[in-house]
Amino acid sequence: MTEKSTHAKVDEAQTAALELAKLDDDERSAGLHAIADAIDTRHEEILEANEKDVEEAEALLEEGKYSQALVDRLKLSESKLESITEMVRSVAAQDDPLEKTLASRRLDDDLELYKLAVPIGVIGTVFESRPDALVQIAALSLKSGNAVMLKGGSEASHSNRVLYDIIVEATADKPDGWAQLIEAREDVTAMLEMDDSIDLLMPRGSSEFVRYIQDNTSIPVLGHTEGVCHVYVDDAADLEMAADIAYDAKVQYPAVCNAVETLLVHEDVAEAFLPEIAARYEDADVELRGDDASRAIVEMADATEEDWSTEYGDLILSIKIVDSLEAAIDHITEYSSKHTESIVTEDADRASTFMRSLDSASVFHNASTRFSDGFRFGLGAEVGISTGKIHARGPVGLEGLTTYKYHLEGDGQVVGTYAGEDAKPFRHEEFDGDWTPGRLSQE
Amino acid sequence: MTEKSTHAKVDEAQTAALELAKLDDDERSAGLHAIADAIDTRHEEILEANEKDVEEAEALLEEGKYSQALVDRLKLSESKLESITEMVRSVAAQDDPLEKTLASRRLDDDLELYKLAVPIGVIGTVFESRPDALVQIAALSLKSGNAVMLKGGSEASHSNRVLYDIIVEATADKPDGWAQLIEAREDVTAMLEMDDSIDLLMPRGSSEFVRYIQDNTSIPVLGHTEGVCHVYVDDAADLEMAADIAYDAKVQYPAVCNAVETLLVHEDVAEAFLPEIAARYEDADVELRGDDASRAIVEMADATEEDWSTEYGDLILSIKIVDSLEAAIDHITEYSSKHTESIVTEDADRASTFMRSLDSASVFHNASTRFSDGFRFGLGAEVGISTGKIHARGPVGLEGLTTYKYHLEGDGQVVGTYAGEDAKPFRHEEFDGDWTPGRLSQE
Repeated sequence: MTEKSTHAKVDEAQTAALELAKLDDDERSAGLHAIADAIDTRHEEILEANEKDVEEAEALLEEGKYSQALVDRLKLSESKLESITEMVRSVAAQDDPLEKTLASRRLDDDLELYKLAVPIGVIGTVFESRPDALVQIAALSLKSGNAVMLKGGSEASHSNRVLYDIIVEATADKPDGWAQLIEAREDVTAMLEMDDSIDLLMPRGSSEFVRYIQDNTSIPVLGHTEGVCHVYVDDAADLEMAADIAYDAKVQYPAVCNAVETLLVHEDVAEAFLPEIAARYEDADVELRGDDASRAIVEMADATEEDWSTEYGDLILSIKIVDSLEAAIDHITEYSSKHTESIVTEDADRASTFMRSLDSASVFHNASTRFSDGFRFGLGAEVGISTGKIHARGPVGLEGLTTYKYHLEGDGQVVGTYAGEDAKPFRHEEFDGDWTPGRLSQE
Repeated sequence: MTEKSTHAKVDEAQTAALELAKLDDDERSAGLHAIADAIDTRHEEILEANEKDVEEAEALLEEGKYSQALVDRLKLSESKLESITEMVRSVAAQDDPLEKTLASRRLDDDLELYKLAVPIGVIGTVFESRPDALVQIAALSLKSGNAVMLKGGSEASHSNRVLYDIIVEATADKPDGWAQLIEAREDVTAMLEMDDSIDLLMPRGSSEFVRYIQDNTSIPVLGHTEGVCHVYVDDAADLEMAADIAYDAKVQYPAVCNAVETLLVHEDVAEAFLPEIAARYEDADVELRGDDASRAIVEMADATEEDWSTEYGDLILSIKIVDSLEAAIDHITEYSSKHTESIVTEDADRASTFMRSLDSASVFHNASTRFSDGFRFGLGAEVGISTGKIHARGPVGLEGLTTYKYHLEGDGQVVGTYAGEDAKPFRHEEFDGDWTPGRLSQE
């Protein structure tokens, strides 16, 4: 077998991207249904390949080089495959993120400008060792008309290869080479240098890994680093509500980025609030680490400076007592990763000050930080959560995989008419109307 | 004088950015009027400083180290200062790019999500030796609520320093340190590494310079590289219209990025079209470089492979005859810088194929490429033209200096309610409504 070079694969993807951009939503969604159908009929083959991955991972587990949690994430089953195809079909059912007219402006008579949503082009992805990730990323890319480079974790290589082959076969009527499998680590390095042909990189994995990618490429990166989220219990809070929110934000699913890591409590309500919430946390086996003032009220470990900027991703919570709303804002500004922060208060002005003052992607009033999620936000399929501020921020839906393009329909206009002493003025009127090819010349 | 370090300046800007984000449009626009008024009353001081820059530049000119065109661009006058303040006031008059509710979605009863336009934060800018550039960039930043690092060309250092001082004094009631002047080249290098505190870089200058910035930072870059634009004259073109467009696109202002560099002509109309347009170009002193087929019709220099990818920025044009629309699309796909391409045709289907097939920021039908410009597009003040695809593409208005933030207003909701076996379904209904702080708790 002669393996194609990464460069050749990216070139193919680039050619495919131009063709993909011309498909309509029905054609793209039909591809997704074909993928789902193919996976449905080929369970045996997929599970066989997956079994090889799992065996190899279990061998590493015995050598202590791998964790049981990772083996579990790697393992496919009939029911997992069913949920994968359900996911693919739900992506197909999403609203078309493309071909939307984002703005229409009449520059002058018979000179009409349209801003249209279009795919980004070629997206380079690197993701964790979960075989469902490959299918999900391929599905989101196809739905949004993007060609995609797929590099999964090497532990899932047998599963990924079979799933990739199924995807390619099921979409044989789609532009050739729209999805490309990459298997070697060196090929990721090669991708990082291809800023002429890869338009966006979407790395998933640890914060360190995402940072590494950002530091080693000039391609734009849509990446997620830490989630050091805060809940602030104001002195004007409904304390019962505050306890429910603080509990849910930590305990409901502690391993995720939108779980709270630091609880800030106004000193005037600390004595009333802390003992009760501490008891609830204790029942849920949450380890508490507090500042001196918190520890004077409830017995717990001492929080160090490092705790304030740590994403535990676990049943651990740091607690700090603050003497004002401003002190809470200052603490968050200093230590937050700008992901999600929530204030619990009955005072609308304080909520407003909190929400306006903080430079985080999501700021909540009287709700759990755990709502910070593409599905819960109603964005449909989630592409990822961005901790950057450029292009897409916070939970990202299919829209994050699009950019725009300007179409101008004229009737022979030249700029000379609109320049110099006798310059004709522009009209610049917004109007409702979609781009219709050659509308003006058909009149 | 103890000079502050670049790090200290960026820290100040970061603090100021959080305060700027809280100002309303009236406050930001009042700052712009104060800047314009201050410039109006301090002409003498500005022209005195500018005279020093011009003298130094003229000395370099005599040594052959500088061009007359650059000296002219550097030089300020009473009338140039008037047009600068006019520009500042027109930025003030623009629609507020902030505080727009981009989307409102009811996730459930009393759980409302708002997507709000907000400033990006701290913007690092590096620009050419034109003193008006400093004022323009500062004005755009203030209008959009962003703190800004300003690094101008060293040739304009005296002018820049005075203008900067005027801006700072005129906006003394605005958040301290919102605009920071940077003067040394090493300080640009320092900025490139500050990805924790600078949110966006906007370099202006040569393509090589923008590339250098992109290659040496992990901060997102909104930059403009080449403009290799094309006009394609289809066999179904109105040839008189085609000649007007081809002429305007090259001659009206050849030094700019949206001027045409390569003219593609369908072989069936080449004999009818080329001699006439060549005569018009000759009258305007345009140097033509053609492929063999073009040279068989009109006498001109030989175009080399290099010509097809060259941005002349001058009265030079390359010409190629193609045998089909597809060949024109292929040529553009290979050589274009994805800036602006125009097709001249009376055939709506071909226009549509051309516009859908090309991955350029702007694709035009029967109009000059020179329309590709923020002012002509009706975007108001132009921040720049982006040749990237992420965040902002093509001509960029004030909107390009904004990002968004999610505000969630709840009534104590926790995610546990919406998860597990008895999960409550979300409503996810779009509605019309702006974020009102604490709306739900006021009910």
